Amino acid sequence: MRTSIGKRYWAIAEGYIPEQSTGPAPDMTSHETACILNTNEEDASIELTLYFADREPVGPYRITVPARRTRHIRFNDLTDPEPVPRATEYASVFSSNVPVVIQHSRLDSRQSENALMTTLAFSADQ
Amino acid sequence: MRTSIGKRYWAIAEGYIPEQSTGPAPDMTSHETACILNTNEEDASIELTLYFADREPVGPYRITVPARRTRHIRFNDLTDPEPVPRATEYASVFSSNVPVVIQHSRLDSRQSENALMTTLAFSADQ
Amino acid sequence: MRTSIGKRYWAIAEGYIPEQSTGPAPDMTSHETACILNTNEEDASIELTLYFADREPVGPYRITVPARRTRHIRFNDLTDPEPVPRATEYASVFSSNVPVVIQHSRLDSRQSENALMTTLAFSADQ
Amino acid sequence: MRTSIGKRYWAIAEGYIPEQSTGPAPDMTSHETACILNTNEEDASIELTLYFADREPVGPYRITVPARRTRHIRFNDLTDPEPVPRATEYASVFSSNVPVVIQHSRLDSRQSENALMTTLAFSADQ
Repeated sequence: MRTSIGKRYWAIAEGYIPEQSTGPAPDMTSHETACILNTNEEDASIELTLYFADREPVGPYRITVPARRTRHIRFNDLTDPEPVPRATEYASVFSSNVPVVIQHSRLDSRQSENALMTTLAFSADQ
Repeated sequence: MRTSIGKRYWAIAEGYIPEQSTGPAPDMTSHETACILNTNEEDASIELTLYFADREPVGPYRITVPARRTRHIRFNDLTDPEPVPRATEYASVFSSNVPVVIQHSRLDSRQSENALMTTLAFSADQ
Repeated sequence: MRTSIGKRYWAIAEGYIPEQSTGPAPDMTSHETACILNTNEEDASIELTLYFADREPVGPYRITVPARRTRHIRFNDLTDPEPVPRATEYASVFSSNVPVVIQHSRLDSRQSENALMTTLAFSADQ
Repeated sequence: MRTSIGKRYWAIAEGYIPEQSTGPAPDMTSHETACILNTNEEDASIELTLYFADREPVGPYRITVPARRTRHIRFNDLTDPEPVPRATEYASVFSSNVPVVIQHSRLDSRQSENALMTTLAFSADQ
């Protein structure tokens, strides 16, 4: 089996954390996730930069995904260098030292029933 | 970090703005969005052309995404050269002077709970 | 502007038309769609083949998308050589004489609120 | 028509089977699916490996998709070498002896109305 799958640069153009939620936290809290898969035999050190509509990019946020592990990063939980503002349009770019695979998901529970969406992120060095 | 990520040509084959909406505007208004990320050090000048089922393409719509910014364009808000008709199937092609990343999303609130969908657009020069 | 965007071969691995629907037809009828964009200066002649879990493939279904047009094909509406069975898992392969772009969507209204999903199809000659 | 479409290596970074469901089983049971299309004239032998956040990968799960067939694999139904835990983040890697196409879907019925999402998986040898 191949032990290294993916790309080193990824981008997600759609980003938006709804301000309201309905239902029990944290499962039903409106959130955005970057699901990262690291199939390598070494840890992945990833730098995440957030882009906005009306101000300079913010980052890097530093994320580690251990060897042979997956991590589902909630943008809601990021704090350093600063929290991700709610009800604000943003986009994100990931730069990793080893190939990884990144998929983007959102759960929106502003209304009483949740809505879901997902897509493969854009891999920049394909 | 790479400062230029993406492609210059993008297409979204699925386009449809529902005519009805439920819930407070503008958040819960049924809408379609093209989320555009410009990581370059220069502004992106983008021409958008809309394709229809039964008439000639319409455009170009001209969109600028400043350097190091993201813009989430609502097709609902386009007016020049003409508004996007509701309840009508269309598709869209984007041509940019610099590489960008484009993701397509729809919020459909025709029924009382909203539904969401998203996908990476097709990059034509890959 | 480029006048030819896309690929000639596409596949959609996920296919399923729910048997039940809630809400006014045809908008809220559970359905699956292949949105096809033809940016060329000539018509696209497309052959569609359906694959199933337990029997031989069915096709070709013949689809024409005129030059500079988009068509959103509902699998529900296909009849020749035979209708697409409901509540049955299938997959589809498209073969076009000119490059096109294909995106897959489903509206599922089995429950009282509709759910949506979409993805870019897989382009086989990339 | 081309008889072999797809890639041999695929990854899905997002994986999560909700623990609760609403509505009649099995249709409305919360589930995740890998839809696999094999257009080849020979059977596809696929090895699936699951990755987790906090322990070593599990697998291989062995899947056969006959020649000219599609199979929609529910992760819920996998049992050998072990069932997929519910309410647990995971990711998956597929390795096939022949080219296939893989698409990922989730139906989440934790709340009374179901939500759907889908995306093309990441093809590793593109």
